[in-house]
Amino acid sequence: MLRDGEHIDDLQIKGFKLIQNREKFCFGIDAVLLSNFVDIKNGERVVDLGTGTGVIPVLLAAKTCAEKIVGVEIQQDMVDMARRSVTLNGLKDRIDIIHGDIAKGAPGLELGIWDVVVTNPPYKKRGSGIINPDASKAIARHEIMCTLDDVIKAAAKLLRPRGRLYMIHRPERLMDIALGMRRERLEPKSIRLIHPKVDRPPNLLLVEGVLGGGRHLKWLPPLYVYDENGEYTKEVKAIYGRG
Amino acid sequence: MLRDGEHIDDLQIKGFKLIQNREKFCFGIDAVLLSNFVDIKNGERVVDLGTGTGVIPVLLAAKTCAEKIVGVEIQQDMVDMARRSVTLNGLKDRIDIIHGDIAKGAPGLELGIWDVVVTNPPYKKRGSGIINPDASKAIARHEIMCTLDDVIKAAAKLLRPRGRLYMIHRPERLMDIALGMRRERLEPKSIRLIHPKVDRPPNLLLVEGVLGGGRHLKWLPPLYVYDENGEYTKEVKAIYGRG
Repeated sequence: MLRDGEHIDDLQIKGFKLIQNREKFCFGIDAVLLSNFVDIKNGERVVDLGTGTGVIPVLLAAKTCAEKIVGVEIQQDMVDMARRSVTLNGLKDRIDIIHGDIAKGAPGLELGIWDVVVTNPPYKKRGSGIINPDASKAIARHEIMCTLDDVIKAAAKLLRPRGRLYMIHRPERLMDIALGMRRERLEPKSIRLIHPKVDRPPNLLLVEGVLGGGRHLKWLPPLYVYDENGEYTKEVKAIYGRG
Repeated sequence: MLRDGEHIDDLQIKGFKLIQNREKFCFGIDAVLLSNFVDIKNGERVVDLGTGTGVIPVLLAAKTCAEKIVGVEIQQDMVDMARRSVTLNGLKDRIDIIHGDIAKGAPGLELGIWDVVVTNPPYKKRGSGIINPDASKAIARHEIMCTLDDVIKAAAKLLRPRGRLYMIHRPERLMDIALGMRRERLEPKSIRLIHPKVDRPPNLLLVEGVLGGGRHLKWLPPLYVYDENGEYTKEVKAIYGRG
């Protein structure tokens, strides 16, 4: 089950576990907060674009009654690792991990039928900041294999009418997010900003868009990660299941 | 100096005062927070679109070294009242109040030369919510005489290259703000959200745009209006000069 450098992390929910490799990209708080933000109804079918280790499909299998969750990932070694996590958790009937290229519209998936698309895409534009020498980390963080526009376009093609996109991204990219979503008729319906602390600017943005939705945007209360003592806030502890 | 129903309010800064009429639109915390957000350099020339009582020009005259501040207002009775406030404060050399229609691009003002445009426009779309029976309040709150797009277009025409727009608006209108500003090459450079309390969604949005500016958006720390006891926070008290 485990290859060199890999080990098993406990996801602290329903006994689910995840195979990760510290040398490669490991999931962060982003994936956890996004999974908590997503609203999935019984029996819905979900695609996770850029699934990496498969953490989001496993968390959503634990938290929701989604019928089917497909994780799409371009890196073959991550696909292989994510598949082994699915097997490890006995989730092969609910989760598929497929090898696919988001920039090409995630070929292989049927279009226009999915209820929900979830994505924690690379945040940084190509050419901005330092590129991690590890390919898996670089691809997860920088728009090397796909851009924000690629992700939004793929989501718009995959979703059924009124289907929902849930995305986490950087607030600095707000203009690209707003314009890209409007262009693809994925109208933003709700936004929640995540602040490291109460007195700090937001550093993450959760957005829900509806394909063909009306133009009505709702703002949710802010989410603060750390309290004044540098400890997780009650809300974050509860999301991590330690509340 | 005063007409029926009018009285003089103390602005609590440098002894400046403002004539208002409780039956008509009176300035709120929006104008105060916007005036505090604006960054004006020595000798700059400023236009306030939709100046109403003239509160923003008077506050900016008190807080900054702007050389000239022109308030544009469509309601003749408000123009008249604002002009009397300017006289009352001995600011006739620095502030002009002109009668003008923003929807027509504020004719009478020279284009492409202003360093800064400030605006606290009506927040609500025509046809949304209850229209106030008083015309002055209705025009100040609803997009009856001018829309958000009119305001952004007028600002873009008035500003010099790299000139700045400072606007306060509702976060629900974010998509209209983002798309409208990008369309007019008024690129958003910084955003500050205002929350009634720490645990509440933002209900006001401050945005700075630069005409022809690069695509780099900075988020500022949130501003909270009330503390847990329902009193103004230290920051708001300081802005009001009571800190």
